[in-house]
Amino acid sequence: MADELTEAGGRIRLYVTADLAKDTSVTLSDGQGHYLLHVMRAEVGDCLRLFNGRDGEWAGEIMSAGKRGVTVTARARTAPQVEVPDLWLCFAPVKKTPSDYLAQKATELGVAKLQPVFTRRTIVTRVNQDRLLANVIEAAEQSDRLSVPEVAAPVMLEKMLSEWPEERTLYFCDEGGDACPMARVAILAPVAILTGPEGGFDPAERALLRKRSFVVPVTLGPRILRADTAALAALAVWQSTAGGWRQE
Amino acid sequence: MADELTEAGGRIRLYVTADLAKDTSVTLSDGQGHYLLHVMRAEVGDCLRLFNGRDGEWAGEIMSAGKRGVTVTARARTAPQVEVPDLWLCFAPVKKTPSDYLAQKATELGVAKLQPVFTRRTIVTRVNQDRLLANVIEAAEQSDRLSVPEVAAPVMLEKMLSEWPEERTLYFCDEGGDACPMARVAILAPVAILTGPEGGFDPAERALLRKRSFVVPVTLGPRILRADTAALAALAVWQSTAGGWRQE
Repeated sequence: MADELTEAGGRIRLYVTADLAKDTSVTLSDGQGHYLLHVMRAEVGDCLRLFNGRDGEWAGEIMSAGKRGVTVTARARTAPQVEVPDLWLCFAPVKKTPSDYLAQKATELGVAKLQPVFTRRTIVTRVNQDRLLANVIEAAEQSDRLSVPEVAAPVMLEKMLSEWPEERTLYFCDEGGDACPMARVAILAPVAILTGPEGGFDPAERALLRKRSFVVPVTLGPRILRADTAALAALAVWQSTAGGWRQE
Repeated sequence: MADELTEAGGRIRLYVTADLAKDTSVTLSDGQGHYLLHVMRAEVGDCLRLFNGRDGEWAGEIMSAGKRGVTVTARARTAPQVEVPDLWLCFAPVKKTPSDYLAQKATELGVAKLQPVFTRRTIVTRVNQDRLLANVIEAAEQSDRLSVPEVAAPVMLEKMLSEWPEERTLYFCDEGGDACPMARVAILAPVAILTGPEGGFDPAERALLRKRSFVVPVTLGPRILRADTAALAALAVWQSTAGGWRQE
């Protein structure tokens, strides 16, 4: 039975908040129920996979689907819980579509937390946290992650720096000046990567950042990268040199 | 005058195919003329920057704008020609929007050539080469590149391998099995990166690839990356460990 479930559960994978253990039943959200029954055309008796960020991944069986929602019972654990490295992405929010893309890709690339940061040249004035969260959940479901990154409330750059936990290195992706290549200065977690808005950081912000002991300015090559490209490149470079991609 | 042009030419940057030298005049394409006059609201006497992939970057002045098109005269060289490392991206084509995105990002990340490759599980059956080229030109203009990547005609995987130049290492991004982390096996150019379609390579293709002496299977971490994420991550990791991002 467990083997069958492991095989059959491959197609659909959902994030839930409830605890997962053998024979525990979980009621899905209305949105998940709709997706399951009307988009994926699943039926009672079908199998899927569930994860909650704490208990690993479980193969489950759809037990009921009615007016009170869809209930799934966990049957067999298909993977133990694995943590991603303690890597944050602090990013100046960009327009809607690039923000969606950034949230999805950063999730695939294994961030633990997404922190929107308002800077002086940030053009976007509001961040839709719910939309970001929906994007990271979908990306976590599709990339076989066992956790969903935290999506923090937006913060002003100055405030973020004044409350920063000193033991966490902050890689400041700096387009101008004398920064070191990212691969050369990458160290183990806890770390964070900071990328600016389309217009870059302003001189006062650059000076403020460079004064802090936990900030390491880094460069990503000689060309100008768009804000979302810089963030994804920095995440990939850190993962491959100091993070979760070093061993296999 | 040259200094003024260098300052003023910052806003608009266009790729042209004509030779560029002091006081040479270039007639822009109809599309570029339209963009310049009607989107950017430029006028005769305004300055912009030009590059052609051979002669560096030039500040130019709009000399005439009429029915015969827009003419720009190169006045001062603002940057010497710099080559990108000899890095190819061979990728199984994906849907329209991710393909646009991939072409733009790969250009920013400094590829020399984009090679679409059809594999057994590739769902997309046609590649719009003109659209890819428009995307890479726009990305080159906006990222301060001095060249535009070549966009090759699509090829079948088997044919590509049979005609492969043996001295060029081909990094095969392989999701299953015993591949090495990309950062550990990155060597100097000429190299190429190969990424598969959404469904991955099929077992026969994986076997075929692993038989060739120039193929090095590599892994990009424990999670499943979307096709475009894998390509961008691999490019960033190679650039930072063996390519153009090592020195600054």
